[in-house]
Order: sequence, then C-alpha cells, then structure tokens
Amino acid sequence: MNAENFLKDFHHVASIGATLNHGVDRQAATPEDRRTRDWFRTFATERGWETRVDAIGNQFALITWRKDAKYVVVGSHLDSQPLGGRFDGAYGVLAALHAAERLVKRVDNGGELPMFNLAVVNWFNEEGGRFAPSIMGSSVYAGIMDRGEMLQVRDLGGTTVAEALGSIGYLGSDTAPEAASYAEIHIEQGRILEREGLQIGAVDSSWYTQKLDIEILGEQSHTGATAMADRRDALVTASRVILMVHDVVDDFEPEAIVSSVGRMTLEPNSPIVVPRRVQLVADLRSNSPEIVKAARSSLLKQLNDLSDEHQVEINVRDFDIRENQYYPESGVELTEKLAANLGLGVRRMQTMAGHDSVALNRIVPSVMVFIPSVDGVSHCEREFTTDEDMTAGVDLLTELSWELVQGALVADG
Amino acid sequence: MNAENFLKDFHHVASIGATLNHGVDRQAATPEDRRTRDWFRTFATERGWETRVDAIGNQFALITWRKDAKYVVVGSHLDSQPLGGRFDGAYGVLAALHAAERLVKRVDNGGELPMFNLAVVNWFNEEGGRFAPSIMGSSVYAGIMDRGEMLQVRDLGGTTVAEALGSIGYLGSDTAPEAASYAEIHIEQGRILEREGLQIGAVDSSWYTQKLDIEILGEQSHTGATAMADRRDALVTASRVILMVHDVVDDFEPEAIVSSVGRMTLEPNSPIVVPRRVQLVADLRSNSPEIVKAARSSLLKQLNDLSDEHQVEINVRDFDIRENQYYPESGVELTEKLAANLGLGVRRMQTMAGHDSVALNRIVPSVMVFIPSVDGVSHCEREFTTDEDMTAGVDLLTELSWELVQGALVADG
Repeated sequence: MNAENFLKDFHHVASIGATLNHGVDRQAATPEDRRTRDWFRTFATERGWETRVDAIGNQFALITWRKDAKYVVVGSHLDSQPLGGRFDGAYGVLAALHAAERLVKRVDNGGELPMFNLAVVNWFNEEGGRFAPSIMGSSVYAGIMDRGEMLQVRDLGGTTVAEALGSIGYLGSDTAPEAASYAEIHIEQGRILEREGLQIGAVDSSWYTQKLDIEILGEQSHTGATAMADRRDALVTASRVILMVHDVVDDFEPEAIVSSVGRMTLEPNSPIVVPRRVQLVADLRSNSPEIVKAARSSLLKQLNDLSDEHQVEINVRDFDIRENQYYPESGVELTEKLAANLGLGVRRMQTMAGHDSVALNRIVPSVMVFIPSVDGVSHCEREFTTDEDMTAGVDLLTELSWELVQGALVADG
Repeated sequence: MNAENFLKDFHHVASIGATLNHGVDRQAATPEDRRTRDWFRTFATERGWETRVDAIGNQFALITWRKDAKYVVVGSHLDSQPLGGRFDGAYGVLAALHAAERLVKRVDNGGELPMFNLAVVNWFNEEGGRFAPSIMGSSVYAGIMDRGEMLQVRDLGGTTVAEALGSIGYLGSDTAPEAASYAEIHIEQGRILEREGLQIGAVDSSWYTQKLDIEILGEQSHTGATAMADRRDALVTASRVILMVHDVVDDFEPEAIVSSVGRMTLEPNSPIVVPRRVQLVADLRSNSPEIVKAARSSLLKQLNDLSDEHQVEINVRDFDIRENQYYPESGVELTEKLAANLGLGVRRMQTMAGHDSVALNRIVPSVMVFIPSVDGVSHCEREFTTDEDMTAGVDLLTELSWELVQGALVADG
C-alpha cells in the first residue's frame, strides 16, 4: 500500500512540466518549478506538517517531535535540466516525503520517541542549467556560497535569482531548520549498479572535478572573399580543442576519467563571417586528483602547440575546482547494514556527479545512497529507473532516516 | 581638392560607430546605422538633391536633369558586420556621392546634358549579420526577395526588420527611382590586386555559392555521471563536421574553393550537460559550380559515415544557392578602357563575395569595380585600403558614371 501511494505520487509529479518524450522541463524558479513546490507544500500541510521557505528558496516540511531538538534533514531537489529526466532529484524528494510519513506513523503507533526531529527538503537550483553555479540552495545553506551574491545571479535573459524566486512566490523569509545530519537518495546516473545487478549504492566519496574556461581568439574575416590560407578561424581551432578534450581520457585506464564540453559561445556568429572568438567550458572529473591534473597538463601542452600552429591566441583559466569529499564511514556502514537487513544487494561506490549532499557533508554527517539507472543515462528524457528499484530505495531511506532520528552518526560519532 | 574632400568625408563617416581597433560596428537599422543615414541625407540636401527612403529602408539621393528619364543608380551600403571594417560598403557610397558631385559640376560648367538622371544609393542590410539573408534591400528592389516577408525577419532578440527600421526613423514610403543601369565600387576583400600591384579590378562574374544547414542530433546526458562510451555527444560530432567542412577544400586546386562555418548554435548549452543538438551553417564558394557540387557530395558522404560511426542523426538542407552571375561584357570593357585612360593598372576578376550589384545585375546592366585590400582581409577591424587607392577609385567611378548617364550599356546595348 505504501509502495503504491509512493508510485502514484511519483508519477503525478512527473506529469508537472512533462515533455513529449517522458522527460520533464522544470528549470529553477520557473512556473513548472512553482507547481512542484505547490504540490510539496500541499503534501505537507495535508498531513499537518509545518512548511518553511528560506531566503534562497529552499523549501522544508518539518516534523517536530521535540521542541529545541535539531533536525535530521532528508531530501534532494525538484528542479530539472532543460529536457531533463523525471527521476533526477525528484525521486529523492518524493522518497523522503514518503519515508517521513512512515516514520510519523511508526512513532504514532508507539515507536520510540526520536532524539531528533525530521525535515524533508527540496533544495533550490541543484541543476544550475538556468542559474550557475549548480548546487546553489544547499551550498548557501551550508555557508559555502554567499546568499546575497547568489540572489543577484542572472539567467541568460537577464532575470536575477531574486526576481525569479519572487515571481513564483518562493523567495521566503523563514528560518531554515538547524540540521543534525543529512541523508539523500538519488538515481546513480551511471550503469555500475545495473551492470552488477545491485539495488543500492552506498556512496563513500565524490570525484575530484574541475572546469577549464578556454577562450580562443582568432580574427574575423569574410567567408567568401578571404583565402583559406589568410584566415585565423577561431571555430576551426575550437573544434580541435573539443576533440582534444574528448580524446584526453584515452591516456588513462578505461572509465578512470570523464571529460566534456557542454557550454560554448561563438562570435560574431554570422553565417558569412569567419569566427573571431570562441569561449567554451571543459569539464574534467576523476576519482583521482592526480589523473585530473595529468589530463589538465596534457591539455595545456596540446593547446599551446595548437595556438602556435594555428596562429590564434588561446587563454585558459581554471575554475570550479571541487576536491574529493568523503562521507562518514559510519554512514556508509549503516547503509550497507540496512540494505542487507532488507535483502537488497549493495556495494560501495563513488559519485562522479555533484549532489546537494556534497555541500551538506561539509557541515553535518551526511549519507548518500544510489539506486540504479537503466542504461546509465541521465540529464535526458529517457532517464529511467524501475518502480521496483524506486520502492526498494524508499524502504532503505525509511530505515536510514529512522536510525538517524534516533541519533546515528551524531550521538555515537 | 576633390580628393581631399572625399577623404575628409570618408574618414568622418568611419568615426560613426568606430571601434577601438579602427573598425566600425554599424549593423543594419541600429542607432549607428541611423547616424550614417542622417549624414547621407545631410550631404544630399546641402547640395539641393532630393532624398528618398523606400519601404525596405533603401536610401536614395536623386539628381534629376530630365523629368521622365530613368536613373543611373550608383552606390553600395553603409551598414557593417559586428566589429567590421570601415571600408566594406561605406567606401562605395562615399565614392558615389563624390562622383555625383563632380558630374553635377561638369554639367553645370557646360558639359553635355545627360540622357539619364543619377541616383546615389545606400542599400539596406547588405551584410545580413543582424537580419538574414544578406543583400536584402537591393534584392527586394530587384524583385528577388519579397518585401513583406523581409519586413518580418527577426534578429536574435526578436525584433523585426520593420520594427528596427521604424525605430531609427528609416522605414520609408517613397517610390524608389527606376534604374536604367547600375554601378558599384567596392574593396576587393581578397589579395589579388595587391599581389599584382594593380589599382582596379573589372569584375566579370560572381562565384557560385551555396550554404548547407546541418543539424546534429545526439542525446543529452550528464557530463559527470555518464560514461564516455554511453554518450552520444552532438558537439563532439559537430567538431568533426566543422573540420570536414574546412578540409574538403584540400581535394581541389589551391584557392579553387573556400569553405567555412560561421554560425552555430548548441543545445542545451549547459556546462554540466553533454550537448543534445548542434545546428550550424556551412558555406561553400567557387567559381565553378561543379567544384561546389563535388565538395557538397563529398561532405554528404562523410557526414553519412560520421552519423553511423557516432550514432547521431545528421540532417542536411541546401539553401541560399546563388548561381554564377555574369556582368555585361560591355561594362567590363568600359571599366578597362577608363582605367587605361586614367593610367590605372587594371585586370578582369571574379567576386567570391556577394554584393548588391549581383542583385541589380538581374534587372539592369550593372558594372562592378574593385580597388585593392591590404593583406586581403575584410569583415574585420584591420581591413585597410590606402587613401591613394581610394581616390583613384573615385576618379574611375566618376568617369564610369559619366559614361553611364550618357547612355553607355543601355543606349548601345
């Protein structure tokens, strides 16, 4: 019955901002984001739970058993990438709401009164597709990013975070609950669990990541009249850079590092002008900082040679360097034990992607749990996880939350 | 004295919309475009010439010696590419105004009363950087493009041609003068004249050109979590396409064909999403239609193989095919003769770039004349032509216009 209620709610929320090919398009602080937030608030108030929205748009549902006690915070995010999948983020919030409901019943039915209260959270702007950087709401909560600065970040249309949140009625002024610990469940977005036939991943650390801002300065000229030999075409050079970024992973063991270029701008972007300037963002990720640093060095050398060869200027700037984060060992062991109790296959793993839990882990003991992704795809409409894997994850999160409100990782830490 | 006046006016107009590195930024129907138009109108009205603006923003200055006679139209365009050069287009309009002034004096001083009247023109939106397609105003005048359709073309900000022209006060309603013949002088934008030490190019034909609209459809996924082998990255494929377009010229004789990609858009263009879709415009130009067609066939085959290899969809659409245009032989011979009379070195040549004269040549006998470009560069700030070459061109255009108003190419055609 519980599983059915969860699935009904999950598939309802997936209909908000639904796209033609079974995905969702719910970028941060859009009308679609507002509708999921309204749904979250209704879910909580119907159950008599207090709701709060803080001054960066994080949304909380509070279950308070003991005044003056801190909160175990459990959740994820309801925003999505443009044409994103319906599981990324939303699954973790829905799982947390249903786990909370089960804990409330367990206490109401005579279970032990917990040491900590419980808060379900929907973090603002985890995706960063509209407003960069990503993982914004939880990073402000954790004190890693400055709230005033983030409220002034603009999207490509010039709208600020503050304006966008205000326009959907979710620029709050409530005090966020004080966390004792944090738990989050999320789809893997890779294919390790699927390949090994396991249902639960106990995440022990996050990958080392960094981005490179690469600017290529050639010279604009006429696409018709200028001889090929006289051109300094920034886009031709940029194409070689993109292939170098793609191919640099081949210098290392398979799957040891991933690389990509996701953002790129071109000037003047006129059909009859040889491009003058290209700016692009390269993303390097590995569990090993040494591998990322070796790839970066290799790229810098190749870019230097390319600059000489093509007579274009190439400027490179490091940014958004994220060190490996290690989740508490006690939380990883707890996840392994609870999975075994439930008869679910489990393994330790790392997260290659960033998550709100990476920010929360900077301030309180945090636990990160994965469930499988079919074909390992994410950030796209065909992202998929089975109902069975989703409900197994809700069961795991319920037991994990129960242990945490009883003081696990904190009282014994 | 005439040369000095011309140079003074030329360098003044180059200060309108001037950029830091000696270029200009005067895209069609911007405030900078308005300021050059105001200057053009003042030049004409100070001399008692009638000015008109037609319903696609073409601007004319009319010198009417005989009521009911048609007009020899002489000119070019004052708009530029973004960060463009100060010679492309503007030189031809300024040269035409000063040639017209000399002809007026020649008639006033007892010269033979011309058979035709004279109109200097500033064509709307030759560059096409803001509103595509290029060569818009002259093509509407020549009946090749539909005025109503062109007025509804939008820039990247969503503004229509009609709105933009209205906002600068140059959406006119005047009747354009009826042309008897057309002449235009322009910088070469290549380095043939410079290389051969000549001052005048007599253009006998335009190159065959075509564009290819290429859409690449991969699948978006997470730049961190998705394994390299599971990705279908539209931007990596696009990079290979851009290099194929660049390298296809190597299949042919040196300088027989030029190719480029000048416009490209990327979706979703998020730093943490592997790109789903890229759309780009490839431009192929050669004097020989067979060479362009062979290059196109080679590219289509390569794109087909690439699509299979990368498991991405590639859609290609031909557009903006422009056949070779041949200018009247009598006009080419006239240019050669007049250059020789003035002691200027001259050769026949082709134009690789499109020009307003290509459109005008569809409806009336047209003459196209080039002067040298230093280093052959154009559509950039360091575009350059010497004062000496410019004033020699004004002298040539004066004599050419004189012959045309006397009936050359029409009366004897």
